[in-house]
Amino acid sequence: MHMIPHKQHILDAADRIAPYVHETPVKTCRSIDEKAGVSFYFKCENFQKIGAFKIRGGTNTLLQLSADEKRKGVVTHSSGNHAQALALAARNLGIKATIVMPHTAKNVKKNAVKDYGAEVVECEPSMAARQQNVDQVIAKSGAVAISPFNDYRIIEGQATVGKELLAQIPALEAIIAPVGGGGLLSGTALAAEYFGSGVEVFAGEPEVADDAYHSFYKGELIPGNYPETVADGLRVSLGDKPFGIIKNRVNDIITVTEEAIISAMRLVWERMKIVVEPSAAVPLAAVLKEQAHFAGKRVGVILSGGNVDVGNLPF
Amino acid sequence: MHMIPHKQHILDAADRIAPYVHETPVKTCRSIDEKAGVSFYFKCENFQKIGAFKIRGGTNTLLQLSADEKRKGVVTHSSGNHAQALALAARNLGIKATIVMPHTAKNVKKNAVKDYGAEVVECEPSMAARQQNVDQVIAKSGAVAISPFNDYRIIEGQATVGKELLAQIPALEAIIAPVGGGGLLSGTALAAEYFGSGVEVFAGEPEVADDAYHSFYKGELIPGNYPETVADGLRVSLGDKPFGIIKNRVNDIITVTEEAIISAMRLVWERMKIVVEPSAAVPLAAVLKEQAHFAGKRVGVILSGGNVDVGNLPF
Repeated sequence: MHMIPHKQHILDAADRIAPYVHETPVKTCRSIDEKAGVSFYFKCENFQKIGAFKIRGGTNTLLQLSADEKRKGVVTHSSGNHAQALALAARNLGIKATIVMPHTAKNVKKNAVKDYGAEVVECEPSMAARQQNVDQVIAKSGAVAISPFNDYRIIEGQATVGKELLAQIPALEAIIAPVGGGGLLSGTALAAEYFGSGVEVFAGEPEVADDAYHSFYKGELIPGNYPETVADGLRVSLGDKPFGIIKNRVNDIITVTEEAIISAMRLVWERMKIVVEPSAAVPLAAVLKEQAHFAGKRVGVILSGGNVDVGNLPF
Repeated sequence: MHMIPHKQHILDAADRIAPYVHETPVKTCRSIDEKAGVSFYFKCENFQKIGAFKIRGGTNTLLQLSADEKRKGVVTHSSGNHAQALALAARNLGIKATIVMPHTAKNVKKNAVKDYGAEVVECEPSMAARQQNVDQVIAKSGAVAISPFNDYRIIEGQATVGKELLAQIPALEAIIAPVGGGGLLSGTALAAEYFGSGVEVFAGEPEVADDAYHSFYKGELIPGNYPETVADGLRVSLGDKPFGIIKNRVNDIITVTEEAIISAMRLVWERMKIVVEPSAAVPLAAVLKEQAHFAGKRVGVILSGGNVDVGNLPF
């Protein structure tokens, strides 16, 4: 149980997970640069295994379980990218994974998790029911619960995104990530501190799910109530471990409207010809909102994932 | 007016257009490989300038105009990628371009062409009206008409896609391109002959727009009647110059249903997280149809473009 990860923890995480994850490419786009007056460097975690950065933290965590924990297996509740990340990481390492998912989750999501060999336990669509089912799995099998973000091992894994990006584009002046539970943002902030040189760190957050914004400005955790936002990966509230890292390492959290998120997502699809999920478009929307601050700068934007129902788009 | 392009023509074209086009990446996708039992190498012309390979042929043609022709400008009719390609190539070279477009063409397409500085002349949505308007522009300004595919300079430009792909992945055993007018397919066949080593060449064509298939098997040009297909870039009929190249240099033309095209397009979007237009998905649909032939082979698939109305998808 270590405290806020040190530089060496992140270096170790990068070595540890390297055989199991992609080094994702950085893409540029002249027309988006011209539109914003910014030099963007898009870190394409939508091309990551399982289509999102979450495989990094999941893999880093499972690799550090004890032999006894590995034998008992792991459990989590998630209907999103963490579910797939844990399922694949567990399969890669020969560990049994159980994923609690609301029965309302789309079949395509349940099947993706099953395809990775995990067991899916369906429950009522409430946070209480999800936790209760996780507790039941633990009671029965002794499985280890794996948080999607509130765990330093997860944060170290997600920090490898920023570490990689800064190695690819050392001259970055700012990095911006989306914030939901805070795993990616806190990891990015640590990566900027340890591997960058005076690089500013920003977050984009949906206006309707702005608990991180309020927590950041108030200086204490103010949970949200799982609000509806098109950026479905960002509904969860900030965890206390990420918050402890974020609160004095992030320059600002910029909130954006639903319309701005959808419009930024469409811009990426149309101009860059790549598929990103709404959550991944939040940072670009934030930069476009605060264009004056970023004008003329080299800005790294983490495109966190590309898992979207292409048959049901918001545009 | 030379005959079927020689190897040197294609080498010259590649040098000539290099400052104006991207060398596009080749992407692989383990899950599509596993699904098909094929080793796919996707040549991403959706990431090309204007979002499609057409900028190659257009640029190669305009660079070879005489000073007098350049002064008079160029004209074409197109509501698709050729319109944008000619507009951008002309702007890059300081040449005036006039594009005849049916007034039914989407505003987004007209505006894209205008944004590149070309003049748009609107006409009735018939092939006769389109040609008539082109003739009027020629009569008035002496502008040079630029065919989208029935011109060896265009074919040489499109041949640089296959040349590049074979330099990137020399061990390819087969290459497959979509076929509409035949510019890309004939160029690919020449590239395979000159730069490959026993590489088979295939085409994918929509079943409802199968004039190239019939022409290929009959050994003579059998024009289509601009049929409706979701692969809107492939409605045009095969040109006689491409046909002269294709008829004895292509192993087979594989026709695919509309459903298969949409399904292959969705597969690319969901698994590769990249945006391709329906025409670009036709070759993958063809390989999946004739899976037995391609099993175990290294197959280059030309993803010809990514210009699609993301607000109006077929799935």
